[in-house]
Amino acid sequence: MAATMKAFVMKRIGEVGMAEKPVPEPGPLDALVRTTAALVCTSDTHTVAGAIGERTNLTLGHEAVGVVARLGGAVRGLRVGERVVAGAITPCFRCENCQRGYPSQCTGMLGGWKFANVRDGNLAEFFLVNDAEANLARIPDDLPDEKAVYCADMLSTGFVAAEHAAIPMGGTVAIFAQGPVGLMATVGARLLGAGLVIAVEGIPRRADLARRYGADEVVDPAKQDPVARILDLTGGAGVDSAIEALGAQATFEACVRATRPGGTISNVGYHGKGEFVSIPREAWGVGMGDKTIRTGLCPGGAGRMNRLLRLLQTGRVDPTPLTTHRFPFAEVEKAFRMMKTKEDGILKPLLLFG
Amino acid sequence: MAATMKAFVMKRIGEVGMAEKPVPEPGPLDALVRTTAALVCTSDTHTVAGAIGERTNLTLGHEAVGVVARLGGAVRGLRVGERVVAGAITPCFRCENCQRGYPSQCTGMLGGWKFANVRDGNLAEFFLVNDAEANLARIPDDLPDEKAVYCADMLSTGFVAAEHAAIPMGGTVAIFAQGPVGLMATVGARLLGAGLVIAVEGIPRRADLARRYGADEVVDPAKQDPVARILDLTGGAGVDSAIEALGAQATFEACVRATRPGGTISNVGYHGKGEFVSIPREAWGVGMGDKTIRTGLCPGGAGRMNRLLRLLQTGRVDPTPLTTHRFPFAEVEKAFRMMKTKEDGILKPLLLFG
Amino acid sequence: MAATMKAFVMKRIGEVGMAEKPVPEPGPLDALVRTTAALVCTSDTHTVAGAIGERTNLTLGHEAVGVVARLGGAVRGLRVGERVVAGAITPCFRCENCQRGYPSQCTGMLGGWKFANVRDGNLAEFFLVNDAEANLARIPDDLPDEKAVYCADMLSTGFVAAEHAAIPMGGTVAIFAQGPVGLMATVGARLLGAGLVIAVEGIPRRADLARRYGADEVVDPAKQDPVARILDLTGGAGVDSAIEALGAQATFEACVRATRPGGTISNVGYHGKGEFVSIPREAWGVGMGDKTIRTGLCPGGAGRMNRLLRLLQTGRVDPTPLTTHRFPFAEVEKAFRMMKTKEDGILKPLLLFG
Amino acid sequence: MAATMKAFVMKRIGEVGMAEKPVPEPGPLDALVRTTAALVCTSDTHTVAGAIGERTNLTLGHEAVGVVARLGGAVRGLRVGERVVAGAITPCFRCENCQRGYPSQCTGMLGGWKFANVRDGNLAEFFLVNDAEANLARIPDDLPDEKAVYCADMLSTGFVAAEHAAIPMGGTVAIFAQGPVGLMATVGARLLGAGLVIAVEGIPRRADLARRYGADEVVDPAKQDPVARILDLTGGAGVDSAIEALGAQATFEACVRATRPGGTISNVGYHGKGEFVSIPREAWGVGMGDKTIRTGLCPGGAGRMNRLLRLLQTGRVDPTPLTTHRFPFAEVEKAFRMMKTKEDGILKPLLLFG
Repeated sequence: MAATMKAFVMKRIGEVGMAEKPVPEPGPLDALVRTTAALVCTSDTHTVAGAIGERTNLTLGHEAVGVVARLGGAVRGLRVGERVVAGAITPCFRCENCQRGYPSQCTGMLGGWKFANVRDGNLAEFFLVNDAEANLARIPDDLPDEKAVYCADMLSTGFVAAEHAAIPMGGTVAIFAQGPVGLMATVGARLLGAGLVIAVEGIPRRADLARRYGADEVVDPAKQDPVARILDLTGGAGVDSAIEALGAQATFEACVRATRPGGTISNVGYHGKGEFVSIPREAWGVGMGDKTIRTGLCPGGAGRMNRLLRLLQTGRVDPTPLTTHRFPFAEVEKAFRMMKTKEDGILKPLLLFG
Repeated sequence: MAATMKAFVMKRIGEVGMAEKPVPEPGPLDALVRTTAALVCTSDTHTVAGAIGERTNLTLGHEAVGVVARLGGAVRGLRVGERVVAGAITPCFRCENCQRGYPSQCTGMLGGWKFANVRDGNLAEFFLVNDAEANLARIPDDLPDEKAVYCADMLSTGFVAAEHAAIPMGGTVAIFAQGPVGLMATVGARLLGAGLVIAVEGIPRRADLARRYGADEVVDPAKQDPVARILDLTGGAGVDSAIEALGAQATFEACVRATRPGGTISNVGYHGKGEFVSIPREAWGVGMGDKTIRTGLCPGGAGRMNRLLRLLQTGRVDPTPLTTHRFPFAEVEKAFRMMKTKEDGILKPLLLFG
Repeated sequence: MAATMKAFVMKRIGEVGMAEKPVPEPGPLDALVRTTAALVCTSDTHTVAGAIGERTNLTLGHEAVGVVARLGGAVRGLRVGERVVAGAITPCFRCENCQRGYPSQCTGMLGGWKFANVRDGNLAEFFLVNDAEANLARIPDDLPDEKAVYCADMLSTGFVAAEHAAIPMGGTVAIFAQGPVGLMATVGARLLGAGLVIAVEGIPRRADLARRYGADEVVDPAKQDPVARILDLTGGAGVDSAIEALGAQATFEACVRATRPGGTISNVGYHGKGEFVSIPREAWGVGMGDKTIRTGLCPGGAGRMNRLLRLLQTGRVDPTPLTTHRFPFAEVEKAFRMMKTKEDGILKPLLLFG
Repeated sequence: MAATMKAFVMKRIGEVGMAEKPVPEPGPLDALVRTTAALVCTSDTHTVAGAIGERTNLTLGHEAVGVVARLGGAVRGLRVGERVVAGAITPCFRCENCQRGYPSQCTGMLGGWKFANVRDGNLAEFFLVNDAEANLARIPDDLPDEKAVYCADMLSTGFVAAEHAAIPMGGTVAIFAQGPVGLMATVGARLLGAGLVIAVEGIPRRADLARRYGADEVVDPAKQDPVARILDLTGGAGVDSAIEALGAQATFEACVRATRPGGTISNVGYHGKGEFVSIPREAWGVGMGDKTIRTGLCPGGAGRMNRLLRLLQTGRVDPTPLTTHRFPFAEVEKAFRMMKTKEDGILKPLLLFG
């Protein structure tokens, strides 16, 4: 095995670039994976912009698939040479928060998020996976990398938004914003039995994809007040469930307003600004309206990855349309730049490794 | 039966007084109850102050027990002469919101609240109960009125705050404010298996009651930052569950800050001011911390009343210490005034009907 | 309105026939519905065979749609002339079991089942619906009777089997027997996000429908041991959830054996024989395997009917293939006989009223 | 550290005795604990009788506390010298069943149970704990060993029986058998808000303890039919929840009969005999009565241990009365024999290590 590898890193806040790094050595519970395909995530651009503070030469990326290259001494149940996907979130599954059922909050708030946060990410020729046995799932032979790689984050995050939304079978749901996560939340709402799926999205290409992914109605917030339209579509009642997939005060607030008493607001958008995110008091029933606000971070773990892979295998969802662009890994910087500008209608750029 | 009765009414915003009203006639699903004991609630003072808009000669009150005086033609399972308690909230149990499991939101937001809101309340010699079969529970012979009357609102509201808090067995819970509802939430947290109950309260008499009702620790927010103290008491983790029993930005915000990732904030306080109630963004995990915000209004219904009466019967809770003052019904105006001023350490005034 | 009507009745155990009955008068909470379409259910044949004891001239049937003909004085929210569907189960929604969240057990075990049990059913030109406001849902104009009528029982029962099965998103589920309820359970499992749906059915026509309704695999129990095949399809683990849609010891037992530890067995089949239904002790983990056995009866109520109608409207399910035969109401006796013999591959016969 | 230690072993089916064994070496994820106190469990006697098949020189015991003596290289968060309790069940917390939320079924049915099953137990001077970080909880300084040791199994198992029983606040619960687990289930039912706790027990000493631990009523099954008595105490309705804490057909069956529609039967008793455990068909609502049968095995994990320790610390439960006998470890064989014969009213014998 080569002693060094290429890695796409955050050099410091505001600056990225390709770096040469040593291929890391797995600790007793780790696996070393040779990357075969990866996706770039908008959250990487937030990280580089300073959202989580300074980082130096940190490898970016948390959505990747590859082949097991080396295993730590205490890892059971995996073999070198197997094709695997790692969740974007890699909890230890041992700490109190993990045992309580909140592995995304491993050891502390958002602590399950380790790639490109507290350890090197996987936009590199090789990457280490902590607690590999718990975090790596084998990819079935009939599933190509370019589908399986979506399990790491997009499917897991979009679907959990729908799972948290407590949609009754045949119920109504509104999903605010149809970026990749919002689109997968739309799929998730369909997969969980929603009877009426209303997507809120103004960009035509995303609105089209929303319809293709199962939205019964798409509301353009530039043309219509989405809350008024949702109330209209639900006979004045409001939806059973609203999903916030953007991370903005306006959409969060609209979720609360558009949801009926006894309904659920499922937040999955990253709120990056301000001291507060504010609940409209009266629409919230002055704190007594039986409206629940649920939040969450992408769930990880081999068990979840296995279930997501199964949904790909049996054709319940096809993430391919999300891949608007493809690049060899050597051009990762271009892909990264496009994710920042969102030029050319980019949704997700797929990176292919040699 | 007398043709008229005395009733304590809101004449208009800001003005109350005793009125002579006709004894009402029950419709087919109603019961007429002769009042024997009642409590005054702080929310009645909010109503008179204009919280729900103008009302004219509306009988106040929603916490009462009495004796069935007359029954509508379609009421089954009740008999004239039985001692009964009616929930403060009297849902129809037939509409869609009721069927969905949210009877407090009967037909619309907070719509289960009918007494002293959309129909006459029960600070009167007689009162009508809608959907009587579903809303009246028989009081066991061995339970005095002065205990049973607490089922109508204080027990039901305080306990639901604890039920919504999703406290794990042996978990930690903080309850902000120890008025009558907060105290009953403290009892509720103990009844539901909390391992550490932290009450936040500055008024000494209430703090003493909190201890008597099962708080392991009482934090005086005038002397200590309650969030810092709660973090300290939980080894830095924060509580599993926080209960907001006041209805204020400061306490709501403290609840979010004091709760661990994957924890629950149960709001039961009435938020009466401002356009927004605001969530501290970072303590909320930027919308991804698996913190759930649950709200609710006092649950009603004969089934719930029966379970609450059982808890009184088997001695799980004694609400008597909440009754700081007693008055004959003729002095209701004095009791009402004291609930506004909170003078003389008043918690709940009990009104006895001749 | 005519003073009398034709009704298809159980004259006594073992004997059915057409009878002339007075058109019933609605009580204060009832609606009188003029029937436009109905289905015959196998459970009617059980009733006639004596499953619930003797009945005299009881009108059969519990799956029907029609037009509101007359309303009791206390019914709100409905109008004469509206097209409606009534759930097969018509709870009062007021009693303690209804308030506890178990309306199918209204007032007592299976007590929500009133049609053709404790009151006349709806295989008649007119039928009464108790607690009409809570039990009648308006049919959208664009939905034909022949689809809407499936909401009454088949969709509601089949789907609740899937809802009770606690299928994780992407999880595995096996459904034993693919009669009309089993087929709708298969649809329900798909609608709720199952990643692998295994149907167990030996009759070729039903097996074909199972595939059409979304089963990924169909196992013929005459050719393969279904438990062995299910274990094989799940890598030895067993399914997350198993649905018993037949009501037999063999299938119930197979459900327990085919389900993994921590999985759920959802029983919806009617068990009509023997003193016991037996759990295989070792496969059940000697009472410690975290396997849950859940049971249920068709849920009713306008709220649920509304959600089921929505699923028909937005095309999530098309029950039409279940209608293998059509008859004018005058030929109901023939339809009933065929449901007993199951001749000509009958699944559901649709009865059309003049 | 000594190279060898004394251990109480199952030599083969039917034969026990003291043995000299090497002090084991911890693997990378293990901890070696020096035992300070332990309890004998009836299930050890089942093991010796052959319940899980042949074993050779297997150290018995799964309820112990001690002091950390040595730690594997990959263990974080623990220190040599700390007082700790290990759950009787020691899951890996990494496998799919663990990740699904069923750690007691780690890797397979009942697979969380490792001590004295697939590895040496802790009736020895030292014992190894697998996945130590996840399975060892520090004992607070103010808690004596003789209380803390009850967290390992008795509190965890008894309480989970109550947690699985889904007791509504103020609801009714019956607990069949008041051995140590049944008594802790009685405490658990009280801690979780049951309004009426009915214990079924014929042995006077256990019946007395049941009252002391919070039972409102105790039914002696030798004197009264417990089902009839329970129906009587609940106005004919049956209990909301029934707990099976014995593991016998008669009590299991009585649980189903005594539970109301929509109620829950929580099985925690070990069913050791026969091919089937049988559900009474009619009392089960012919498979449609909304009665749920839940099962479970003692939960483990440091997080749960911490919550149980907290309940001891804040005085919610005192297990001391369960300790009917005390022995030095040297007399473990006598303690074991008494657990088999149940002579002298033995409940739990406490073993103290030098």
